[in-house]
Amino acid sequence: MSESTDLALPQGFRASGVRAGIKPSGGLDMAALVSDRDCSAAGTFTTNRVAAAPVHWDRSLLPSASIRGIIINAGNANAATGRQGLDNARATAAGAAAVLGCRTDQVLVASTGVIGHQLPMSRVEAGFRDASHAILTTDTRPKVVSLRKDVGGRTVTLLGLAKGAAMIGPNMATMLGFLLTDAKVSPEALHGILKYAVEDSFNCISVEGHMSTNDSVLALANGASGAEDFGALSGLVAEACIILARMIPDDGEGATHLITIDVEGASTPEDARAIARAVADSPLVKTAIHGADPNWGRIVSAAGYAGVAFEEADLSLWLNGTPLYREGAPLPFDDAAVSAELRANRETRIRLVLNHGPAAVRFWTCDLTAEYIRLNADYTT
Amino acid sequence: MSESTDLALPQGFRASGVRAGIKPSGGLDMAALVSDRDCSAAGTFTTNRVAAAPVHWDRSLLPSASIRGIIINAGNANAATGRQGLDNARATAAGAAAVLGCRTDQVLVASTGVIGHQLPMSRVEAGFRDASHAILTTDTRPKVVSLRKDVGGRTVTLLGLAKGAAMIGPNMATMLGFLLTDAKVSPEALHGILKYAVEDSFNCISVEGHMSTNDSVLALANGASGAEDFGALSGLVAEACIILARMIPDDGEGATHLITIDVEGASTPEDARAIARAVADSPLVKTAIHGADPNWGRIVSAAGYAGVAFEEADLSLWLNGTPLYREGAPLPFDDAAVSAELRANRETRIRLVLNHGPAAVRFWTCDLTAEYIRLNADYTT
Repeated sequence: MSESTDLALPQGFRASGVRAGIKPSGGLDMAALVSDRDCSAAGTFTTNRVAAAPVHWDRSLLPSASIRGIIINAGNANAATGRQGLDNARATAAGAAAVLGCRTDQVLVASTGVIGHQLPMSRVEAGFRDASHAILTTDTRPKVVSLRKDVGGRTVTLLGLAKGAAMIGPNMATMLGFLLTDAKVSPEALHGILKYAVEDSFNCISVEGHMSTNDSVLALANGASGAEDFGALSGLVAEACIILARMIPDDGEGATHLITIDVEGASTPEDARAIARAVADSPLVKTAIHGADPNWGRIVSAAGYAGVAFEEADLSLWLNGTPLYREGAPLPFDDAAVSAELRANRETRIRLVLNHGPAAVRFWTCDLTAEYIRLNADYTT
Repeated sequence: MSESTDLALPQGFRASGVRAGIKPSGGLDMAALVSDRDCSAAGTFTTNRVAAAPVHWDRSLLPSASIRGIIINAGNANAATGRQGLDNARATAAGAAAVLGCRTDQVLVASTGVIGHQLPMSRVEAGFRDASHAILTTDTRPKVVSLRKDVGGRTVTLLGLAKGAAMIGPNMATMLGFLLTDAKVSPEALHGILKYAVEDSFNCISVEGHMSTNDSVLALANGASGAEDFGALSGLVAEACIILARMIPDDGEGATHLITIDVEGASTPEDARAIARAVADSPLVKTAIHGADPNWGRIVSAAGYAGVAFEEADLSLWLNGTPLYREGAPLPFDDAAVSAELRANRETRIRLVLNHGPAAVRFWTCDLTAEYIRLNADYTT
């Protein structure tokens, strides 16, 4: 498969966005992703008990073989909005369906923005333009990937879009993501492919560990390429999800470092993930890396409270390839050199190895900076 | 019982501290708390799998009826230090025992500071002075409480000292705490009193949720007052622990707000605690309060990912007494007034009420500020 730079839409899809006046800034805040024919559609969603109204709406429809499009808004999450919020999500789908000439239950809805405010429905009745920019909230750049693969003489195209820079905690999808493909696949198979791909990508990222109410990854496949190959499509979706997922902490609010955490040698994938997540969510680990400070005790102590039973002698640590802690004992190392390497590279690699078993996970997060504080101390006001 | 301002030591105790040269700053960094007779002693400790050497040492001795003192050092945690670290903890106790004229197994040890470096043992061989200041690391002020109570014509005195401003996550003791009393009590009864008191105090605080390797709360009772009253001592210990515990997030690194979180109406205390902890550890909640921003959606969404099953309609929220969210729906409120109240008060009160049952918890944390980032981005370097 090849990664394309021209970000072509798969056959039969259109994308557009508008300034609907939902965001106080007046920026692009509504978008539509539309197929000219029915799509197989699948989704994965937040496990937050306070799930947003559009999450409830989409869950009620998926998986489906007849989805025509997705309406996305930024600036308002339509979460914690009670019965009126559910009515507004349905009304959004209904309005779009009228324009598209399809049924209400053929339109998915996704929202992101402030929680606890009702959608300004008079403004939601609007058109479409520039989709990849319209779904940004505090993101500094669009997160887009375009992949192509030849399948038996036909070209399958997959376009992935994602949004997310904060309120990123790894349980289910952790952000908004949209995958459009012209491959042919059943809704059930697409759901399986998506669930598997999300597990190793969007469920392995964190910015500050706060799980959103609106997390959704939605996939549409309209079959327009005529190509049907489960293995090829699985590979494309998995690759696109990892590329998009990495982009999110790399663009984390205020981030100056992308941190890649490998946990190896665990008994189970759950153990590996618990340790990776404890390290990823520790403000002390994140601030140390921001300060290019090789204070590795913070990393092993975060592993120690992850809820995984191990002895100190089971654990070893590498930072950017330098061994710092082997089987429970500290190793001598060149502080200045490790610090210089942390400072010189945007990506920091943490590798924690247990001697328990074969399970491993790769996880991504970012550092914690004063800019994150500034951005979040006055978001609604 | 009465709270005293002169911070008198209970009868038969002495406290002292020195500058031993462990801290690079040259500040006070070693202290001793000593009794002139054997004490009943109990302790509660971190549940971190990477537990510090002094935690291993103290656990091996407690509960005990014959403890004579505690040697405390700042500047070095003696954690993640392998076999040599264990030898150094024991050597510290042995050196102190030689000075005190008691056995090595009558001396407890507590350490705090950087993880992963061996104790400079040549400097550890030092005297004692000014105990309440010597155990500070990044704390801006000593955390001390002195309580007195008349018991059958005799006065029981309890002196509590605590240390902690960061790496504060609520599991077991979450910091260093020392309780000295001249009450008479068996080691087993003292352990029971301490465990119960710690559960509702030091286990209900958080600064950033990173559990320390060195958390220890140690209690010594030497019986010098001659007063023996389980109920009275329980009350004194519980009150002292809550007073000290609140002081820790109130002095949290960079904190400008103490945040008190009440969760009520839960099915079980575990549910209430899980919700309180999710809210307390959310960087988004903490930065909103720092910014005096009534962005209450962050609070209910944090409750939503705590792992407690509830429906949105089960949940209501008050912020500093103002109702913002009732049974799953947002309420109209005066943004400017709520923001002004957040700005005007150091303490912020969050109240989350479920309709599930009788269980409740009170939890304390602090806001997250750029000063926290500054302090932690260059701690070892």
